[in-house]
Amino acid sequence: MSGGGGTVAVVGGGIIGLSIAWRLQLGGADVVVHDDGEPGAWHVAAGMLAPGGEATHEEPELIRLLAAGNERWPAFAAELGVDVGYDDTGTLSLAMTADDLAEVARDWTHQKLAQLRPSDLREREPALSPRVRAGVFSPAERQVDPRRVVAALRDRLADRIVSKRIDDLSEVDAATVIVAAGCGTAALTGLPIRPVKGQVLRLRGEPGLIRHVLEAAVDGRHVYVVPRADGEIVVGATQEERSDRTVTAGGVHELLRAAIGLVPDLAECELVETTAGHRPGTPDNAPLLGRLDERVIVAAGHFRNGVLLAPITADLIAGLVLDGVADPLLEHFAPGRF
Amino acid sequence: MSGGGGTVAVVGGGIIGLSIAWRLQLGGADVVVHDDGEPGAWHVAAGMLAPGGEATHEEPELIRLLAAGNERWPAFAAELGVDVGYDDTGTLSLAMTADDLAEVARDWTHQKLAQLRPSDLREREPALSPRVRAGVFSPAERQVDPRRVVAALRDRLADRIVSKRIDDLSEVDAATVIVAAGCGTAALTGLPIRPVKGQVLRLRGEPGLIRHVLEAAVDGRHVYVVPRADGEIVVGATQEERSDRTVTAGGVHELLRAAIGLVPDLAECELVETTAGHRPGTPDNAPLLGRLDERVIVAAGHFRNGVLLAPITADLIAGLVLDGVADPLLEHFAPGRF
Repeated sequence: MSGGGGTVAVVGGGIIGLSIAWRLQLGGADVVVHDDGEPGAWHVAAGMLAPGGEATHEEPELIRLLAAGNERWPAFAAELGVDVGYDDTGTLSLAMTADDLAEVARDWTHQKLAQLRPSDLREREPALSPRVRAGVFSPAERQVDPRRVVAALRDRLADRIVSKRIDDLSEVDAATVIVAAGCGTAALTGLPIRPVKGQVLRLRGEPGLIRHVLEAAVDGRHVYVVPRADGEIVVGATQEERSDRTVTAGGVHELLRAAIGLVPDLAECELVETTAGHRPGTPDNAPLLGRLDERVIVAAGHFRNGVLLAPITADLIAGLVLDGVADPLLEHFAPGRF
Repeated sequence: MSGGGGTVAVVGGGIIGLSIAWRLQLGGADVVVHDDGEPGAWHVAAGMLAPGGEATHEEPELIRLLAAGNERWPAFAAELGVDVGYDDTGTLSLAMTADDLAEVARDWTHQKLAQLRPSDLREREPALSPRVRAGVFSPAERQVDPRRVVAALRDRLADRIVSKRIDDLSEVDAATVIVAAGCGTAALTGLPIRPVKGQVLRLRGEPGLIRHVLEAAVDGRHVYVVPRADGEIVVGATQEERSDRTVTAGGVHELLRAAIGLVPDLAECELVETTAGHRPGTPDNAPLLGRLDERVIVAAGHFRNGVLLAPITADLIAGLVLDGVADPLLEHFAPGRF
């Protein structure tokens, strides 16, 4: 079925789909978002904007995309016009033991970040455990609150969002269909996107207990601790190649062990929420961005970088739809590349 | 204010108040329960019926009361006429390390329980960690599901339960008032009852993963693991002298660490619920049972033994009201003894 005149339909009401729809709306398109009401990866995500930490083993094209994503965030957050928790205090990357340090030191060297002494670390972040052995400060790694971003985008789009689950793209009455359905993109398009489960905790403590985003290797486990201005502290994340959404005793235990090991005072914080979600992974864990056929465009498979890449994805896809021009940045991420 | 004819009012709709009201109703009394709707200690409690494990350091009068409580449970559960999870498989008490064993061995000797070898323990309970060093089997230590018990009692009492918070006993229009309000009894009567916070987890796994009630010393921490027939597994409990109801990251971490240390397969179970409640403690941690004045009778302060003692408390207090006779068992527990 085609038709729907000049309408652009976005399938997927997560942070990617909504960001694209907002950019299309600003560009004058007649846009409709189909949202199945299931909270996507954004609902679980901590919202670390970490182009470097995640990227050192990635291909240069992805590193370039991540950097472009990071650059667009300040303006994107400002344009949303409400507080979405964008915070540029920066990130401390930390190693607890000698083994942990050996594991991460190569990344730090590669990023040309100077190792701070434990005393300097604790001056910057007094709540850190005295066991922390080394760390670096990354001023460019920031954070945003994905739940606030999605709420702000929903506000902006308001009556352009339709509560409807799409099981087949033939149900969508629009000349152009953008599939931004995260893990659900696989069933809609046949593209190779798999769920990578992540368990995440939300704690609540005194605002100011922790100043920076912390990401650390703690006794062999990677953990991040993301403090919000209102006292919420997000602790994540497991990384499991499985499709269930079960919050497990073992997952919660491992996260708490690592987080409390890193910041002992977290033990006194309230455990407010335990969740599990799925990162949409691809064979090379880089996103699928671009035209699939005459009618269908894909923007999915952002793996661990969906929040970071939302603004740049929105601009690239909106450009493709509105101007018919594929930015060179898109070249490496063609949905049909596998 | 007096009056209310022959009515007996019970203030407190927890497991103690409801059990008393049910026995009074069976005895022909015109009974009304005032329930403030706040779930009491029963809502958090695992429902271990452990007269021995808790009692070896207690005074002989309390040990006698606990034993009497345990004896009444089979008939009490049967009379309720529905499945309340009463299970007499028995309890394994376990010690993980040499230090843990030194800590608990004296109790086991005192109770004349024969130590089982690790191989015997694992034959009885295959899911146990190979680290478990020693244990004993206590066939008399059973379990019941307190939430099912309260639901069954509510069913039995139905329209005799009034949703009403009582802040002062003068609000109650009845000739006899029984205060069974747990920690709330302090404010109503001035008696010395303090809240002792306990954090408890509920997991869900394959039914049959664990066969016995387990209680253990694990690297210096006491933990219990209570498996229900339907796959629910209750893990408890912290013991904290504080009055907040906050579920803390540290509390949950410690419970998970000990439970997973004891039964590694628990790591795969779903973490379904985290709760905190308050045991009503008294200066000697024995209950307050009996007449406070002409009009007021107290049944509160059961500390960790509220579920175990509900049937015997109900019988003793109902006897006091209906026959005017104080059973000799009550003598040691007079509410005014401090």
